[in-house]
Amino acid sequence: MAVVAVDIGGTTVKGALFDVDGTVLDRATVATFPTGMSAVADGPGGPALAAVTALVTQLAASATASGRTLTGIGLCSPGLVDAERGRVVVAVNLGWTDLPIAELLAARFDVPVALEHDARAAARAERAARLAADKPVDEFVFIPIGTGVSATVVTGGTIVHGATGGAGEFGHVPVVPDGEVCTCGQRGCVEVYASAGNVLRRYREAGGALAGSTRELVDLVGTDPIAARVWQEAVEALATGVVMLTAVLDPGAVIIGGGLGEAGDRLLVPLRAAVAERMRWRALPNIEQSLVGAGAGLAGAAILVNTQSTSTP
Amino acid sequence: MAVVAVDIGGTTVKGALFDVDGTVLDRATVATFPTGMSAVADGPGGPALAAVTALVTQLAASATASGRTLTGIGLCSPGLVDAERGRVVVAVNLGWTDLPIAELLAARFDVPVALEHDARAAARAERAARLAADKPVDEFVFIPIGTGVSATVVTGGTIVHGATGGAGEFGHVPVVPDGEVCTCGQRGCVEVYASAGNVLRRYREAGGALAGSTRELVDLVGTDPIAARVWQEAVEALATGVVMLTAVLDPGAVIIGGGLGEAGDRLLVPLRAAVAERMRWRALPNIEQSLVGAGAGLAGAAILVNTQSTSTP
Repeated sequence: MAVVAVDIGGTTVKGALFDVDGTVLDRATVATFPTGMSAVADGPGGPALAAVTALVTQLAASATASGRTLTGIGLCSPGLVDAERGRVVVAVNLGWTDLPIAELLAARFDVPVALEHDARAAARAERAARLAADKPVDEFVFIPIGTGVSATVVTGGTIVHGATGGAGEFGHVPVVPDGEVCTCGQRGCVEVYASAGNVLRRYREAGGALAGSTRELVDLVGTDPIAARVWQEAVEALATGVVMLTAVLDPGAVIIGGGLGEAGDRLLVPLRAAVAERMRWRALPNIEQSLVGAGAGLAGAAILVNTQSTSTP
Repeated sequence: MAVVAVDIGGTTVKGALFDVDGTVLDRATVATFPTGMSAVADGPGGPALAAVTALVTQLAASATASGRTLTGIGLCSPGLVDAERGRVVVAVNLGWTDLPIAELLAARFDVPVALEHDARAAARAERAARLAADKPVDEFVFIPIGTGVSATVVTGGTIVHGATGGAGEFGHVPVVPDGEVCTCGQRGCVEVYASAGNVLRRYREAGGALAGSTRELVDLVGTDPIAARVWQEAVEALATGVVMLTAVLDPGAVIIGGGLGEAGDRLLVPLRAAVAERMRWRALPNIEQSLVGAGAGLAGAAILVNTQSTSTP
């Protein structure tokens, strides 16, 4: 028996074939849009769904070739996701509107299919990883920082989806009044200061020329004053947001994931200091790096199959 | 059969005797501290516990006099409350530290006793009232605005307590950088602009002289420019906080309660406008007045007896 997990992104669709015990048996990645194609769909799901289908076909064949039976598919997608009904309500960068992707794939591959929002799937993987590491956590906030910034709230071991499935938009919490304009139309959002792309953009706009990537910028924080200032502004924006989350939700842990989470102590140490500086009035949550790292979406999608309601063939 | 509910406050302890169907049979209120006494305890619980005990004794006698059997006691308290263990961990204005109040009263009155944080008990009452009014809501934030400002988060019908029972401190979310100093030590908190007492304080400090109470100040918003400005600043602080709650939690409703919630449309109309102005990028929650009003704590305490774990005699 084996399960296919798929992490659908705006640039690539990543997939893996998992054994029942969680071992990765095979991996594959395809471009979400073949060169020259756009997010404009020419059928239900368009090229992005075709990419997902091709990837699942490939990994299902890999399962068969190794003598295993495919027992389910777990998907995670960006956008507004209705996990219960297996539909992507809107995913602008995939060209999807109200796509019943779980039902479509269940019919095509004749196995149950589960769907979740990508950040929530990652939070689920984080919780599972902590349980496996004997550090269980039931009250936490998972903040993946990459192209965007979001926050999945887990309380009592359950992921908060919100009234319309739109919870988690931590990136669009305004923290700098009259600050820079964000893509959402507000000013001073967490994301406009702290996402990986915006950190690099702000560095360049401030005249920084030494770093070619956010990763390089982080390496320059000790020596390049422009990198240091932009990085500190990102930390301050995140800290204001974490103070807010802590005051209202009292999480036991605030877990930083995504690409920028891999900055590790270079992010965590100043972030802890900035939060502590503001919240002298109460105990602070542990601010920690994600255990699951960049593969969180895929791992979460694999877990979904066994823990969430699925669309059946 | 009857239940005693008690809402413990820093100034008064309010109690009511409820019939099993929720009808109020009797009411009583006592001062938390008899004149001349302070919050310094001269025994476990000190004068504040003595006040609670006297009130319960009176209402229990009222039950007996009407031929009813007392079947339980529901309490709500400010401070840091461990509902599960029936303990008030800290309540500075009551002089309590780690007081096992549920256990003490269960032993004294020989009935089960349940305890909850006052704002959470109120949120529970609000949920029950909406269910009874055929307007059920499972994803909401309840914001009582009075001496303080807090926010109880309800998700999937369950109240968020947090990792240490300290969730809900919405009043101490900073929304005005470098703003006025708050009692918590931070600057620019929601509470320092929007609590009932702070609205009046800020009006007076700005030279306002026409209003003698927050209620009068609200009545003057249309005619007194100082009242108008201070009120708008309170609305803006609340709006920034509500934007944050909405982005992260996607509540179906944001329900405003407490004394200031009774300002009704004079608060709700500008608050909705200020939130909508900021959040053009997504659907907004309904921003509504509490159905339960000022008696929410007591009603919530009465509900507790039947729905929460209790300390038994």
